[in-house]
Amino acid sequence: MRTGGVLNILGKLLIVLSFTLLTPIPFSLYFGDGMIPVFLLCACCGSLLGGVMVALFLPEKELGYRDGFAVVVFSWVLFAFIGALPYYFSGAMPSFVDCYFESMSGFTTTGSTIMDKVEILPKSVLFWRAMTHWLGGMGIIVLSLAVMPLLGIGGMQLFQAEMPGPTKDRLAPRIQDTARILWSAYLLFTLVETLLLMMGGLTFFDAVCHSFATLATGGFSTHTASVNHFQSVYVETVIIVFMFLAGVNFSLHYHGLRGRFSAYWENEEFRLYVILSSTAVLILMVANWYYQTYTNLGENLRTAVFQVYTVMTTTGFGTADFDQWPAVCKVLLVALMFVGGCAGSTGGGIKVVRFLLFFKYARMQLRSLVHPRAVGAIKMGHVKVPQEIMISILGFFALYIGFFLIASLVVTGLGVDLVTGTTAVVATLNNIGPGLNLVGPAQNFGHLPPLAKVVLTFCMLAGRLELYTVAVLLTPDFWHMARKPVWRWSLRPTTDKIAA
Amino acid sequence: MRTGGVLNILGKLLIVLSFTLLTPIPFSLYFGDGMIPVFLLCACCGSLLGGVMVALFLPEKELGYRDGFAVVVFSWVLFAFIGALPYYFSGAMPSFVDCYFESMSGFTTTGSTIMDKVEILPKSVLFWRAMTHWLGGMGIIVLSLAVMPLLGIGGMQLFQAEMPGPTKDRLAPRIQDTARILWSAYLLFTLVETLLLMMGGLTFFDAVCHSFATLATGGFSTHTASVNHFQSVYVETVIIVFMFLAGVNFSLHYHGLRGRFSAYWENEEFRLYVILSSTAVLILMVANWYYQTYTNLGENLRTAVFQVYTVMTTTGFGTADFDQWPAVCKVLLVALMFVGGCAGSTGGGIKVVRFLLFFKYARMQLRSLVHPRAVGAIKMGHVKVPQEIMISILGFFALYIGFFLIASLVVTGLGVDLVTGTTAVVATLNNIGPGLNLVGPAQNFGHLPPLAKVVLTFCMLAGRLELYTVAVLLTPDFWHMARKPVWRWSLRPTTDKIAA
Repeated sequence: MRTGGVLNILGKLLIVLSFTLLTPIPFSLYFGDGMIPVFLLCACCGSLLGGVMVALFLPEKELGYRDGFAVVVFSWVLFAFIGALPYYFSGAMPSFVDCYFESMSGFTTTGSTIMDKVEILPKSVLFWRAMTHWLGGMGIIVLSLAVMPLLGIGGMQLFQAEMPGPTKDRLAPRIQDTARILWSAYLLFTLVETLLLMMGGLTFFDAVCHSFATLATGGFSTHTASVNHFQSVYVETVIIVFMFLAGVNFSLHYHGLRGRFSAYWENEEFRLYVILSSTAVLILMVANWYYQTYTNLGENLRTAVFQVYTVMTTTGFGTADFDQWPAVCKVLLVALMFVGGCAGSTGGGIKVVRFLLFFKYARMQLRSLVHPRAVGAIKMGHVKVPQEIMISILGFFALYIGFFLIASLVVTGLGVDLVTGTTAVVATLNNIGPGLNLVGPAQNFGHLPPLAKVVLTFCMLAGRLELYTVAVLLTPDFWHMARKPVWRWSLRPTTDKIAA
Repeated sequence: MRTGGVLNILGKLLIVLSFTLLTPIPFSLYFGDGMIPVFLLCACCGSLLGGVMVALFLPEKELGYRDGFAVVVFSWVLFAFIGALPYYFSGAMPSFVDCYFESMSGFTTTGSTIMDKVEILPKSVLFWRAMTHWLGGMGIIVLSLAVMPLLGIGGMQLFQAEMPGPTKDRLAPRIQDTARILWSAYLLFTLVETLLLMMGGLTFFDAVCHSFATLATGGFSTHTASVNHFQSVYVETVIIVFMFLAGVNFSLHYHGLRGRFSAYWENEEFRLYVILSSTAVLILMVANWYYQTYTNLGENLRTAVFQVYTVMTTTGFGTADFDQWPAVCKVLLVALMFVGGCAGSTGGGIKVVRFLLFFKYARMQLRSLVHPRAVGAIKMGHVKVPQEIMISILGFFALYIGFFLIASLVVTGLGVDLVTGTTAVVATLNNIGPGLNLVGPAQNFGHLPPLAKVVLTFCMLAGRLELYTVAVLLTPDFWHMARKPVWRWSLRPTTDKIAA
């Protein structure tokens, strides 16, 4: 790892983040909540820290794959740290562990909150809370479609060919071009949703915060009652549509916005996403009808569709307390939490494409047991999936279960009950938001022991960065390869600048 | 599939089973419970059905791999059917679904019971109940070490080389030789445990039933209070030792009994089995000490060791109601339920060796992310594991989760609560016995809706036969390949006797 170069980049990213810390200031002015000094202070802290890192360490012309892991993980860790400062300085959350939890929940687009009542936060801080989602969502789109395929993580290599933009060999320019193209779709959707929500009677503030949270599949609302606060079928419908869109691979939107709508249905992952979610809606409706949770067909349909997309796209907005639903609905929703959105969307979870490949694999395996001499190959679209990628994807499932298990053991070990502890891990590892029981949709994470919050914060990070990224940084091997940083103001001539 | 040949073999196996239905008769005579006519009737039914099948269908000289799947699955299905007759005819269980559940639970060495109070069964029926375990265990040892490697199921091919006995190309003689060698260890252990238990004050009847249930990692006891009934540290210790042994690959015992004790520790799977179980004991002890479930160190150690082995080897004997333990213990025990015993043991679950290979895979994957150019290979002992087998093993994990999920949805859909429903599936799919909540160690499966019992019966079968075997039979492809049976007494000359 080129330690100096990595620190230099992280410094630059922090400076960019500091500018975004100024965006809540207009809201603070408008609402007169007196938070302007706080945001100025936070922006100063961020830019100062970033500036020092840039000043101390020289940039590197070329960064390698290993450096990619470090940049990805530490940018989330540092962003969450700087993003936690407004909560801390506002005085609304006295414990920094809580602030960091809330901030990481924002940047990882999780949406789990420790707040009992979010309305006590100043409006500008609520805006910052939604903003962290939106920034995290931007990061994730680029990460999953441009960075991870190059790092070779968990089968994301499959998307290397699908990446829009010019194909260049060098890492940085390619990522920049891809980012520009994808963000245009992200921005456009945010604008359209904000307008549509305002047409539904929401204030500009509520509309923008909710569209930030929707497009990022985050789930932070400006009201404790979440989307239910608005009691509007129109608002729910708008949010359902944009949750659905946010759960789709953004490179498909790029094609869609250029008029090539056939790109959607030609995509196998998109088809499975539609099929799985529709089936889930149907099952929920039948169960809720049979057990008489809802007697009105319209209400039954609306809540079922909303819950399926809020959970499957890992958004986590609430309109109904599904913890009160029949057990079969709970099992189904927890299962959907693991599925998550499509790869290259802002959704979390294991991702639909991995399930798609798993289904294909299971079919091939059964066929090869019936016809031992037949040679089978797994295809995605028209491309054969190499065996290494198949191993990588199947291993990802196993690794996910491993993380889930260890985190559940630790959290329940700290005295949290069985259902609360395990679903808290599911909800954070898959970046959903609410779990069941004491962390259910009508509850929050505030009452958990501090150490459990730390573990769950780690789960959010690990889940968001597709486990491998974080796991790599936990290996001693990775750190053995790290080189001493090249100081910008080194007195000795730097002889070890040669690339390894 | 050579339908006629398969039916012929199944008929022969049924006739053998019918003889074992005569073994409870001496007990019936001794205890005078009047069940002699019942067992005679059942034996007649079995041998009649078997006789008809042998009479109608010609044997085939050579059976193929596809036929292997059908023989394996249908022998368990038919055995459970004939094995259920004594329960039904004894009048103790009025519902045949219950009888079939209990019988399948026996033959799959699961140990889940629908009986509220087992003492109401006549002694000879209780003996038959233990006998089904023992026969199932015999079946499983041969299946996992001789048949499945040849069928190429879920990575069991790895053991093809480890199989003791002469290596021949043809299926039947090889299986027979291997069976003879492995059963000698199984028989010997059963004898020794029976003697040791009798030395602990148990009657011959109790001793033999409990050693049947231990060696098969079944878990049916002759008392409702299970092993706790005896209130004896000595008895518990004996049972712990033999549960431990039953969870080990029986081909290692074959070497061990010939004096080559080093074979145990040289085996990587055995080492991981010991390490995992010891770690689990330690964690349980710390948790139970911290939460003051047990204040006495000896009692804490004894219950922890007993529960770890009863769960990990998937035996399911009870000494403590672990449903009352702290949540972390429950998570750990449910996780151990998935791990299961070693491959080639009578234990169920996913098997230690698959976790071993998964750990190795995860390490290799992380290394290859740090050093992208390094070529890694996974080794077991000194043998390189082919990529196909690695895919097969990782796919097995995913398939397991898939089965677990679908079954949980169905069972909770029938109105069973979340924890009861999901752990009932875990307990049957992994062939353990008890789950948590309403199917916890102090409860039983009797109160579940009949359809849930049918699903759970299917889970026992699928879990016991390593999923793939059952899944293959569910594919239309398999049945398209089935040929019309060759009737022994066909009037037309049989022209289609040529092997395909």
